[in-house]
Amino acid sequence: MKIELNKNEKIEDLGFKHLKIIQNKTGFCFGIDSILLSDFAKKIKEKSKVLDLGTGTGIIATLLCGKTKLKEIIGVEVQKEVYEMAKKSIQLNHLENKFKMINEDILHLNKIYEKNSFDVIVSNPPYKKKNTGIKNEEEKKTFARHETTATLEDFIKISKELLKEQGEFYMVHRPDRLVDIMEYMRKYKIEPKIIRFVYSNLNSKPKILLIKGVKNAKPFLKVENNLYIYKKNGEYTKEIKEIYHSSDN
Amino acid sequence: MKIELNKNEKIEDLGFKHLKIIQNKTGFCFGIDSILLSDFAKKIKEKSKVLDLGTGTGIIATLLCGKTKLKEIIGVEVQKEVYEMAKKSIQLNHLENKFKMINEDILHLNKIYEKNSFDVIVSNPPYKKKNTGIKNEEEKKTFARHETTATLEDFIKISKELLKEQGEFYMVHRPDRLVDIMEYMRKYKIEPKIIRFVYSNLNSKPKILLIKGVKNAKPFLKVENNLYIYKKNGEYTKEIKEIYHSSDN
Repeated sequence: MKIELNKNEKIEDLGFKHLKIIQNKTGFCFGIDSILLSDFAKKIKEKSKVLDLGTGTGIIATLLCGKTKLKEIIGVEVQKEVYEMAKKSIQLNHLENKFKMINEDILHLNKIYEKNSFDVIVSNPPYKKKNTGIKNEEEKKTFARHETTATLEDFIKISKELLKEQGEFYMVHRPDRLVDIMEYMRKYKIEPKIIRFVYSNLNSKPKILLIKGVKNAKPFLKVENNLYIYKKNGEYTKEIKEIYHSSDN
Repeated sequence: MKIELNKNEKIEDLGFKHLKIIQNKTGFCFGIDSILLSDFAKKIKEKSKVLDLGTGTGIIATLLCGKTKLKEIIGVEVQKEVYEMAKKSIQLNHLENKFKMINEDILHLNKIYEKNSFDVIVSNPPYKKKNTGIKNEEEKKTFARHETTATLEDFIKISKELLKEQGEFYMVHRPDRLVDIMEYMRKYKIEPKIIRFVYSNLNSKPKILLIKGVKNAKPFLKVENNLYIYKKNGEYTKEIKEIYHSSDN
Protein backbone atom coordinates (compact mmCIF):
# COMPACT_ATOMS: atom_id res chain seq x y z
CA MET A 1 0.00 0.00 0.00
CA LYS A 2 1.34 3.38 -0.92
CA ILE A 3 0.51 6.47 1.14
CA GLU A 4 0.65 9.64 -0.94
CA LEU A 5 1.97 12.65 0.87
CA ASN A 6 1.15 16.15 -0.26
CA LYS A 7 4.20 18.27 -0.83
CA ASN A 8 3.69 20.16 2.44
CA GLU A 9 3.42 16.97 4.50
CA LYS A 10 6.02 14.90 6.31
CA ILE A 11 6.10 11.63 8.24
CA GLU A 12 7.21 11.81 11.87
CA ASP A 13 8.38 8.62 13.56
CA LEU A 14 6.98 8.38 17.09
CA GLY A 15 9.88 6.22 18.27
CA PHE A 16 7.45 3.76 19.79
CA LYS A 17 6.20 0.48 18.35
CA HIS A 18 7.05 1.80 14.88
CA LEU A 19 4.10 4.16 14.99
CA LYS A 20 4.24 7.17 12.73
CA ILE A 21 2.24 10.32 12.23
CA ILE A 22 1.81 12.51 9.17
CA GLN A 23 1.91 16.20 9.84
CA ASN A 24 2.15 19.47 8.05
CA LYS A 25 5.69 20.73 7.52
CA THR A 26 4.70 24.28 8.36
CA GLY A 27 1.42 23.98 10.31
CA PHE A 28 0.70 23.10 13.89
CA CYS A 29 2.66 20.00 14.91
CA PHE A 30 1.86 17.77 17.82
CA GLY A 31 3.70 18.60 21.00
CA ILE A 32 4.55 17.07 24.32
CA ASP A 33 0.99 17.75 25.53
CA SER A 34 -0.40 14.98 23.36
CA ILE A 35 2.33 12.56 24.40
CA LEU A 36 1.64 13.28 28.06
CA LEU A 37 -2.12 12.95 27.67
CA SER A 38 -1.87 9.57 25.96
CA ASP A 39 0.39 8.40 28.76
CA PHE A 40 -1.92 9.82 31.44
CA ALA A 41 -4.82 7.90 29.86
CA LYS A 42 -2.95 4.65 29.29
CA LYS A 43 -4.76 2.76 32.05
CA ILE A 44 -8.11 2.80 30.27
CA LYS A 45 -9.76 -0.60 30.39
CA GLU A 46 -9.48 -3.30 27.74
CA LYS A 47 -12.12 -3.16 25.03
CA SER A 48 -13.00 0.45 25.78
CA LYS A 49 -14.88 2.45 23.19
CA VAL A 50 -13.04 5.76 23.05
CA LEU A 51 -13.73 9.18 21.53
CA ASP A 52 -10.97 11.70 20.83
CA LEU A 53 -12.36 15.23 20.58
CA GLY A 54 -10.34 17.50 18.32
CA THR A 55 -7.98 14.81 17.11
CA GLY A 56 -5.80 16.91 14.84
CA THR A 57 -3.35 14.68 13.01
CA GLY A 58 -4.26 11.75 15.27
CA ILE A 59 -1.30 11.65 17.60
CA ILE A 60 -3.22 10.86 20.80
CA ALA A 61 -5.44 8.23 19.21
CA THR A 62 -2.45 6.60 17.51
CA LEU A 63 -0.49 6.39 20.73
CA LEU A 64 -3.49 5.05 22.65
CA CYS A 65 -3.80 2.28 20.07
CA GLY A 66 -0.21 1.38 20.90
CA LYS A 67 -0.35 1.82 24.67
CA THR A 68 -3.75 0.27 25.51
CA LYS A 69 -6.03 -2.57 24.52
CA LEU A 70 -8.91 -0.32 23.56
CA LYS A 71 -11.50 -1.78 21.21
CA GLU A 72 -12.22 1.25 19.09
CA ILE A 73 -11.28 4.92 18.99
CA ILE A 74 -13.05 7.57 16.97
CA GLY A 75 -11.21 10.76 16.17
CA VAL A 76 -13.20 13.92 15.48
CA GLU A 77 -11.54 16.66 13.47
CA VAL A 78 -13.32 19.64 11.92
CA GLN A 79 -10.59 20.72 9.51
CA LYS A 80 -10.78 18.75 6.28
CA GLU A 81 -7.09 18.89 5.47
CA VAL A 82 -5.97 17.76 8.93
CA TYR A 83 -8.63 15.05 8.94
CA GLU A 84 -7.18 13.73 5.66
CA MET A 85 -3.73 13.58 7.18
CA ALA A 86 -5.02 11.61 10.17
CA LYS A 87 -6.71 9.15 7.78
CA LYS A 88 -3.44 8.59 5.99
CA SER A 89 -1.65 8.03 9.32
CA ILE A 90 -4.22 5.35 10.14
CA GLN A 91 -3.31 3.54 6.92
CA LEU A 92 0.39 4.05 7.51
CA ASN A 93 0.07 2.41 10.95
CA HIS A 94 -2.40 -0.29 9.81
CA LEU A 95 -4.88 0.80 12.47
CA GLU A 96 -7.99 0.70 10.23
CA ASN A 97 -9.70 -1.85 12.47
CA LYS A 98 -9.41 0.24 15.60
CA PHE A 99 -9.04 3.89 14.74
CA LYS A 100 -11.71 5.72 12.70
CA MET A 101 -11.85 9.38 11.78
CA ILE A 102 -14.84 11.62 11.21
CA ASN A 103 -14.68 15.09 9.70
CA GLU A 104 -17.10 16.96 11.89
CA ASP A 105 -17.55 19.87 14.26
CA ILE A 106 -17.81 18.57 17.81
CA LEU A 107 -20.91 20.75 18.24
CA HIS A 108 -22.79 18.31 15.98
CA LEU A 109 -21.72 15.07 17.65
CA ASN A 110 -24.92 14.69 19.66
CA LYS A 111 -26.75 14.25 16.35
CA ILE A 112 -24.36 11.51 15.24
CA TYR A 113 -23.82 9.41 18.35
CA GLU A 114 -26.26 8.16 20.93
CA LYS A 115 -26.07 9.49 24.45
CA ASN A 116 -24.05 7.46 26.98
CA SER A 117 -22.26 5.51 24.27
CA PHE A 118 -18.52 5.93 25.06
CA ASP A 119 -16.43 4.43 27.87
CA VAL A 120 -13.70 7.02 27.58
CA ILE A 121 -13.28 10.48 26.05
CA VAL A 122 -9.86 12.07 25.58
CA SER A 123 -9.19 15.60 24.42
CA ASN A 124 -6.47 18.13 23.80
CA PRO A 125 -8.74 21.09 23.08
CA PRO A 126 -7.68 24.58 22.00
CA TYR A 127 -6.18 26.40 24.97
CA LYS A 128 -6.94 30.02 24.34
CA LYS A 129 -10.32 31.53 24.90
CA LYS A 130 -12.34 32.75 21.97
CA ASN A 131 -11.44 36.28 21.00
CA THR A 132 -8.44 36.55 23.31
CA GLY A 133 -4.79 37.03 22.51
CA ILE A 134 -3.24 37.49 19.10
CA LYS A 135 -4.31 34.90 16.59
CA ASN A 136 -1.81 33.33 14.25
CA GLU A 137 -2.18 34.35 10.67
CA GLU A 138 -2.15 30.84 9.36
CA GLU A 139 -5.61 29.44 9.73
CA LYS A 140 -4.56 25.94 10.74
CA LYS A 141 -2.51 27.16 13.64
CA THR A 142 -5.37 29.35 14.71
CA PHE A 143 -7.71 26.40 14.70
CA ALA A 144 -5.50 24.24 16.84
CA ARG A 145 -4.62 26.86 19.44
CA HIS A 146 -7.71 29.01 19.78
CA GLU A 147 -11.30 28.21 20.45
CA THR A 148 -13.09 29.05 17.22
CA THR A 149 -16.47 27.40 17.11
CA ALA A 150 -16.41 25.05 20.11
CA THR A 151 -15.39 26.42 23.51
CA LEU A 152 -13.97 24.58 26.52
CA GLU A 153 -17.50 24.45 27.89
CA ASP A 154 -18.71 22.79 24.68
CA PHE A 155 -15.99 20.13 24.90
CA ILE A 156 -17.04 19.27 28.45
CA LYS A 157 -20.77 19.46 27.75
CA ILE A 158 -20.61 17.09 24.77
CA SER A 159 -18.39 14.74 26.78
CA LYS A 160 -21.01 14.56 29.49
CA GLU A 161 -23.67 13.70 26.94
CA LEU A 162 -21.70 11.02 25.15
CA LEU A 163 -19.99 9.32 28.10
CA LYS A 164 -21.53 6.28 29.71
CA GLU A 165 -22.35 6.39 33.41
CA GLN A 166 -18.97 6.36 35.29
CA GLY A 167 -17.26 6.92 31.94
CA GLU A 168 -13.79 8.49 32.05
CA PHE A 169 -12.75 11.88 30.68
CA TYR A 170 -9.06 12.73 30.15
CA MET A 171 -7.93 16.19 29.11
CA VAL A 172 -4.72 18.16 28.79
CA HIS A 173 -4.94 21.92 29.22
CA ARG A 174 -3.26 24.98 30.73
CA PRO A 175 -3.15 25.71 34.48
CA ASP A 176 -4.46 29.23 33.92
CA ARG A 177 -7.78 27.69 32.80
CA LEU A 178 -8.06 25.50 35.91
CA VAL A 179 -10.96 27.43 37.42
CA ASP A 180 -12.95 27.26 34.17
CA ILE A 181 -12.21 23.54 33.87
CA MET A 182 -13.36 22.83 37.43
CA GLU A 183 -16.47 24.97 37.02
CA TYR A 184 -17.58 23.30 33.79
CA MET A 185 -16.74 19.78 34.94
CA ARG A 186 -18.89 20.30 38.03
CA LYS A 187 -21.62 21.89 35.96
CA TYR A 188 -21.75 18.94 33.58
CA LYS A 189 -21.25 16.33 36.28
CA ILE A 190 -17.88 15.02 35.18
CA GLU A 191 -16.31 15.01 38.63
CA PRO A 192 -12.57 15.83 38.65
CA LYS A 193 -10.82 12.85 40.28
CA ILE A 194 -7.12 13.26 39.43
CA ILE A 195 -5.05 16.25 38.42
CA ARG A 196 -1.39 16.41 37.68
CA PHE A 197 0.71 19.49 37.02
CA VAL A 198 3.59 19.35 34.56
CA TYR A 199 6.60 21.63 35.01
CA SER A 200 9.52 22.37 32.71
CA ASN A 201 11.85 21.95 35.65
CA LEU A 202 11.98 22.16 39.43
CA ASN A 203 12.07 25.94 39.54
CA SER A 204 9.41 26.72 36.99
CA LYS A 205 5.70 27.30 37.35
CA PRO A 206 3.41 24.58 36.00
CA LYS A 207 2.95 24.74 32.25
CA ILE A 208 0.57 21.89 31.56
CA LEU A 209 -2.38 20.40 33.43
CA LEU A 210 -3.56 16.80 33.07
CA ILE A 211 -6.99 16.05 34.42
CA LYS A 212 -9.13 12.95 34.75
CA GLY A 213 -12.83 13.14 35.51
CA VAL A 214 -15.48 10.48 35.94
CA LYS A 215 -19.11 11.02 34.99
CA ASN A 216 -21.35 11.26 38.05
CA ALA A 217 -18.61 10.12 40.42
CA LYS A 218 -18.41 11.15 44.06
CA PRO A 219 -16.31 14.23 44.81
CA PHE A 220 -12.76 13.51 45.91
CA LEU A 221 -9.80 14.98 44.11
CA LYS A 222 -6.36 13.40 44.11
CA VAL A 223 -3.53 15.75 43.20
CA GLU A 224 -0.75 13.57 41.85
CA ASN A 225 2.94 14.26 42.33
CA ASN A 226 4.39 16.70 39.82
CA LEU A 227 5.82 15.72 36.48
CA TYR A 228 9.05 17.48 35.52
CA ILE A 229 10.20 17.53 31.91
CA TYR A 230 13.84 18.62 32.22
CA LYS A 231 16.61 18.00 34.70
CA LYS A 232 18.93 20.80 35.82
CA ASN A 233 21.40 19.93 33.08
CA GLY A 234 18.71 20.32 30.40
CA GLU A 235 18.27 16.60 29.76
CA TYR A 236 14.87 14.93 29.90
CA THR A 237 13.99 13.47 33.31
CA LYS A 238 13.79 9.70 33.74
CA GLU A 239 9.99 9.80 33.79
CA ILE A 240 9.78 11.73 30.52
CA LYS A 241 12.23 9.31 28.88
CA GLU A 242 10.03 6.44 30.04
CA ILE A 243 6.91 8.14 28.69
CA TYR A 244 8.51 8.69 25.30
CA HIS A 245 9.68 5.13 25.03
CA SER A 246 7.11 3.22 27.02
CA SER A 247 5.30 0.36 25.42
CA ASP A 248 2.43 -0.92 27.51
CA ASN A 249 3.85 -0.38 30.97
CA MET B 1 -0.85 43.67 83.50
CA LYS B 2 -1.17 40.07 84.50
CA ILE B 3 -2.59 37.47 82.11
CA GLU B 4 -4.21 34.60 83.96
CA LEU B 5 -3.77 31.23 82.33
CA ASN B 6 -6.15 28.39 83.01
CA LYS B 7 -4.39 25.25 84.12
CA ASN B 8 -4.84 23.60 80.70
CA GLU B 9 -3.36 26.58 78.82
CA LYS B 10 0.18 27.39 77.80
CA ILE B 11 1.98 30.29 76.12
CA GLU B 12 3.73 29.55 72.83
CA ASP B 13 6.41 31.95 71.62
CA LEU B 14 6.05 32.58 67.86
CA GLY B 15 9.75 33.39 67.50
CA PHE B 16 8.89 36.54 65.62
CA LYS B 17 8.73 40.11 66.93
CA HIS B 18 8.20 38.68 70.43
CA LEU B 19 4.66 37.68 69.53
CA LYS B 20 3.10 34.94 71.61
CA ILE B 21 -0.04 32.87 71.48
CA ILE B 22 -1.98 31.15 74.21
CA GLN B 23 -3.20 27.71 73.37
CA ASN B 24 -4.67 24.66 74.96
CA LYS B 25 -2.14 22.12 76.19
CA THR B 26 -4.23 19.22 74.94
CA GLY B 27 -6.59 20.73 72.35
CA PHE B 28 -6.08 21.71 68.75
CA CYS B 29 -2.88 23.73 68.39
CA PHE B 30 -2.04 26.01 65.51
CA GLY B 31 -0.02 24.39 62.78
CA ILE B 32 2.10 25.33 59.82
CA ASP B 33 -1.07 26.06 57.83
CA SER B 34 -1.70 29.23 59.79
CA ILE B 35 1.92 30.34 59.51
CA LEU B 36 1.83 29.81 55.75
CA LEU B 37 -1.47 31.63 55.30
CA SER B 38 -0.30 34.68 57.22
CA ASP B 39 2.81 34.74 55.06
CA PHE B 40 0.78 34.26 51.86
CA ALA B 41 -1.40 37.23 52.85
CA LYS B 42 1.40 39.49 54.02
CA LYS B 43 1.17 41.85 51.03
CA ILE B 44 -2.22 43.19 52.02
CA LYS B 45 -2.34 46.96 51.73
CA GLU B 46 -1.60 49.41 54.50
CA LYS B 47 -4.63 50.45 56.55
CA SER B 48 -6.67 47.46 55.44
CA LYS B 49 -9.72 46.48 57.41
CA VAL B 50 -9.42 42.72 57.79
CA LEU B 51 -11.72 39.92 58.92
CA ASP B 52 -10.41 36.53 60.07
CA LEU B 53 -13.10 33.86 59.81
CA GLY B 54 -12.69 31.05 62.33
CA THR B 55 -9.80 32.63 64.18
CA GLY B 56 -9.21 29.93 66.75
CA THR B 57 -6.55 31.06 69.20
CA GLY B 58 -5.70 34.02 66.96
CA ILE B 59 -2.48 32.86 65.37
CA ILE B 60 -3.17 34.23 61.87
CA ALA B 61 -4.48 37.58 63.08
CA THR B 62 -1.55 37.96 65.50
CA LEU B 63 1.01 37.25 62.80
CA LEU B 64 -0.72 39.59 60.34
CA CYS B 65 -0.50 42.36 62.94
CA GLY B 66 3.25 41.74 62.97
CA LYS B 67 3.80 41.25 59.24
CA THR B 68 1.58 43.97 57.76
CA LYS B 69 0.44 47.52 58.37
CA LEU B 70 -3.23 46.64 58.55
CA LYS B 71 -5.50 49.10 60.32
CA GLU B 72 -7.80 46.67 62.08
CA ILE B 73 -8.41 42.94 62.17
CA ILE B 74 -11.50 41.30 63.60
CA GLY B 75 -11.30 37.66 64.59
CA VAL B 76 -14.47 35.58 64.65
CA GLU B 77 -14.53 32.48 66.83
CA VAL B 78 -17.63 30.52 67.78
CA GLN B 79 -16.16 28.54 70.68
CA LYS B 80 -16.29 30.56 73.89
CA GLU B 81 -13.23 28.98 75.48
CA VAL B 82 -11.02 29.44 72.42
CA TYR B 83 -12.34 32.97 71.98
CA GLU B 84 -11.26 33.74 75.55
CA MET B 85 -7.76 32.43 74.86
CA ALA B 86 -7.50 34.66 71.77
CA LYS B 87 -8.55 37.67 73.86
CA LYS B 88 -5.81 36.94 76.36
CA SER B 89 -3.25 36.63 73.56
CA ILE B 90 -4.31 40.08 72.33
CA GLN B 91 -3.50 41.49 75.78
CA LEU B 92 -0.27 39.54 75.99
CA ASN B 93 0.87 41.04 72.67
CA HIS B 94 -0.51 44.53 73.37
CA LEU B 95 -2.56 44.43 70.18
CA GLU B 96 -5.78 45.83 71.68
CA ASN B 97 -5.82 48.77 69.25
CA LYS B 98 -5.68 46.62 66.16
CA PHE B 99 -7.00 43.16 66.86
CA LYS B 100 -10.54 42.62 68.16
CA MET B 101 -12.32 39.35 68.80
CA ILE B 102 -15.98 38.50 68.57
CA ASN B 103 -17.54 35.31 69.89
CA GLU B 104 -19.96 34.50 67.12
CA ASP B 105 -20.95 31.91 64.55
CA ILE B 106 -19.89 33.07 61.08
CA LEU B 107 -23.42 32.29 59.88
CA HIS B 108 -24.63 35.36 61.80
CA LEU B 109 -22.02 37.83 60.58
CA ASN B 110 -24.26 39.35 57.94
CA LYS B 111 -26.46 40.62 60.76
CA ILE B 112 -23.50 42.22 62.55
CA TYR B 113 -21.50 43.82 59.74
CA GLU B 114 -22.59 45.84 56.76
CA LYS B 115 -22.16 44.40 53.30
CA ASN B 116 -19.00 45.36 51.41
CA SER B 117 -17.24 46.55 54.53
CA PHE B 118 -13.91 44.66 54.58
CA ASP B 119 -10.82 45.10 52.40
CA VAL B 120 -9.48 41.64 53.15
CA ILE B 121 -10.81 38.36 54.52
CA VAL B 122 -8.50 35.57 55.68
CA SER B 123 -9.55 32.11 56.75
CA ASN B 124 -8.27 28.74 57.82
CA PRO B 125 -11.63 26.96 57.86
CA PRO B 126 -12.31 23.37 58.96
CA TYR B 127 -11.00 20.99 56.31
CA LYS B 128 -13.25 17.99 56.56
CA LYS B 129 -16.74 17.94 55.17
CA LYS B 130 -19.69 17.76 57.51
CA ASN B 131 -20.52 14.20 58.45
CA THR B 132 -17.43 12.67 56.83
CA GLY B 133 -14.55 10.81 58.38
CA ILE B 134 -14.09 9.90 62.01
CA LYS B 135 -14.61 12.77 64.39
CA ASN B 136 -12.25 13.34 67.26
CA GLU B 137 -13.73 12.67 70.60
CA GLU B 138 -12.65 15.90 72.10
CA GLU B 139 -15.10 18.55 71.07
CA LYS B 140 -12.56 21.31 70.52
CA LYS B 141 -10.58 19.25 68.06
CA THR B 142 -13.76 18.35 66.25
CA PHE B 143 -14.66 21.97 65.95
CA ALA B 144 -11.38 22.99 64.48
CA ARG B 145 -11.04 20.16 61.98
CA HIS B 146 -14.58 19.40 60.87
CA GLU B 147 -17.31 21.54 59.45
CA THR B 148 -19.95 21.61 62.17
CA THR B 149 -22.35 24.47 61.62
CA ALA B 150 -20.68 26.47 58.83
CA THR B 151 -19.55 24.69 55.67
CA LEU B 152 -16.88 25.68 53.15
CA GLU B 153 -19.67 27.15 51.05
CA ASP B 154 -20.81 29.29 54.00
CA PHE B 155 -17.29 30.64 54.53
CA ILE B 156 -17.08 31.70 50.88
CA LYS B 157 -20.64 33.03 50.72
CA ILE B 158 -20.24 35.24 53.78
CA SER B 159 -16.86 36.45 52.44
CA LYS B 160 -18.53 37.54 49.24
CA GLU B 161 -21.13 39.49 51.17
CA LEU B 162 -18.72 41.23 53.52
CA LEU B 163 -15.86 41.99 51.11
CA LYS B 164 -15.68 45.34 49.36
CA GLU B 165 -15.61 45.41 45.57
CA GLN B 166 -12.19 44.02 44.49
CA GLY B 167 -11.62 42.98 48.10
CA GLU B 168 -9.14 40.15 48.68
CA PHE B 169 -9.85 36.69 50.06
CA TYR B 170 -7.03 34.47 51.36
CA MET B 171 -7.61 30.89 52.44
CA VAL B 172 -5.60 27.82 53.35
CA HIS B 173 -7.17 24.45 52.69
CA ARG B 174 -6.52 20.91 51.45
CA PRO B 175 -5.89 20.05 47.78
CA ASP B 176 -8.58 17.36 47.86
CA ARG B 177 -11.17 20.12 48.28
CA LEU B 178 -9.87 22.11 45.31
CA VAL B 179 -12.87 21.43 43.11
CA ASP B 180 -15.30 22.53 45.82
CA ILE B 181 -13.25 25.64 46.46
CA MET B 182 -13.20 26.60 42.78
CA GLU B 183 -16.89 25.90 42.37
CA TYR B 184 -17.96 28.01 45.35
CA MET B 185 -15.57 30.84 44.61
CA ARG B 186 -16.97 31.09 41.10
CA LYS B 187 -20.50 30.80 42.41
CA TYR B 188 -19.99 33.67 44.85
CA LYS B 189 -17.90 35.74 42.46
CA ILE B 190 -14.64 35.65 44.36
CA GLU B 191 -12.47 34.89 41.36
CA PRO B 192 -9.47 32.66 42.13
CA LYS B 193 -6.36 34.62 41.08
CA ILE B 194 -3.42 32.84 42.71
CA ILE B 195 -2.99 29.32 43.99
CA ARG B 196 0.06 27.75 45.54
CA PHE B 197 0.57 24.13 46.49
CA VAL B 198 2.65 23.23 49.52
CA TYR B 199 4.56 19.93 49.63
CA SER B 200 6.34 18.19 52.48
CA ASN B 201 9.23 17.53 50.16
CA LEU B 202 10.14 17.13 46.50
CA ASN B 203 8.75 13.62 46.21
CA SER B 204 5.48 14.05 48.07
CA LYS B 205 2.04 14.97 46.88
CA PRO B 206 0.75 18.43 47.81
CA LYS B 207 -0.58 18.62 51.36
CA ILE B 208 -1.72 22.21 51.64
CA LEU B 209 -3.34 24.66 49.25
CA LEU B 210 -3.05 28.44 49.53
CA ILE B 211 -5.52 30.44 47.48
CA LYS B 212 -6.13 34.12 46.85
CA GLY B 213 -9.33 35.36 45.27
CA VAL B 214 -10.55 38.83 44.40
CA LYS B 215 -14.20 39.81 44.48
CA ASN B 216 -15.60 40.36 41.01
CA ALA B 217 -12.18 40.22 39.36
CA LYS B 218 -11.59 39.05 35.79
CA PRO B 219 -10.79 35.35 35.38
CA PHE B 220 -7.10 34.55 35.14
CA LEU B 221 -5.44 32.11 37.47
CA LYS B 222 -1.76 32.21 38.32
CA VAL B 223 -0.35 28.98 39.69
CA GLU B 224 2.68 29.93 41.76
CA ASN B 225 5.80 27.83 42.08
CA ASN B 226 5.58 25.13 44.72
CA LEU B 227 6.50 25.60 48.32
CA TYR B 228 8.47 22.74 49.89
CA ILE B 229 8.67 22.39 53.65
CA TYR B 230 11.57 19.96 54.09
CA LYS B 231 14.85 19.34 52.32
CA LYS B 232 16.06 15.80 51.61
CA ASN B 233 17.99 15.75 54.87
CA GLY B 234 14.84 16.55 56.85
CA GLU B 235 15.76 20.16 57.58
CA TYR B 236 13.43 23.04 56.78
CA THR B 237 13.96 24.58 53.35
CA LYS B 238 15.35 28.09 53.08
CA GLU B 239 11.93 29.50 52.19
CA ILE B 240 10.27 27.94 55.23
CA LYS B 241 13.02 29.27 57.50
CA GLU B 242 12.45 32.71 56.03
CA ILE B 243 8.70 32.44 56.58
CA TYR B 244 9.15 31.43 60.19
CA HIS B 245 11.54 34.23 60.93
CA SER B 246 10.47 36.95 58.52
CA SER B 247 9.65 40.33 59.91
CA ASP B 248 8.03 42.63 57.39
CA ASN B 249 9.82 41.52 54.25
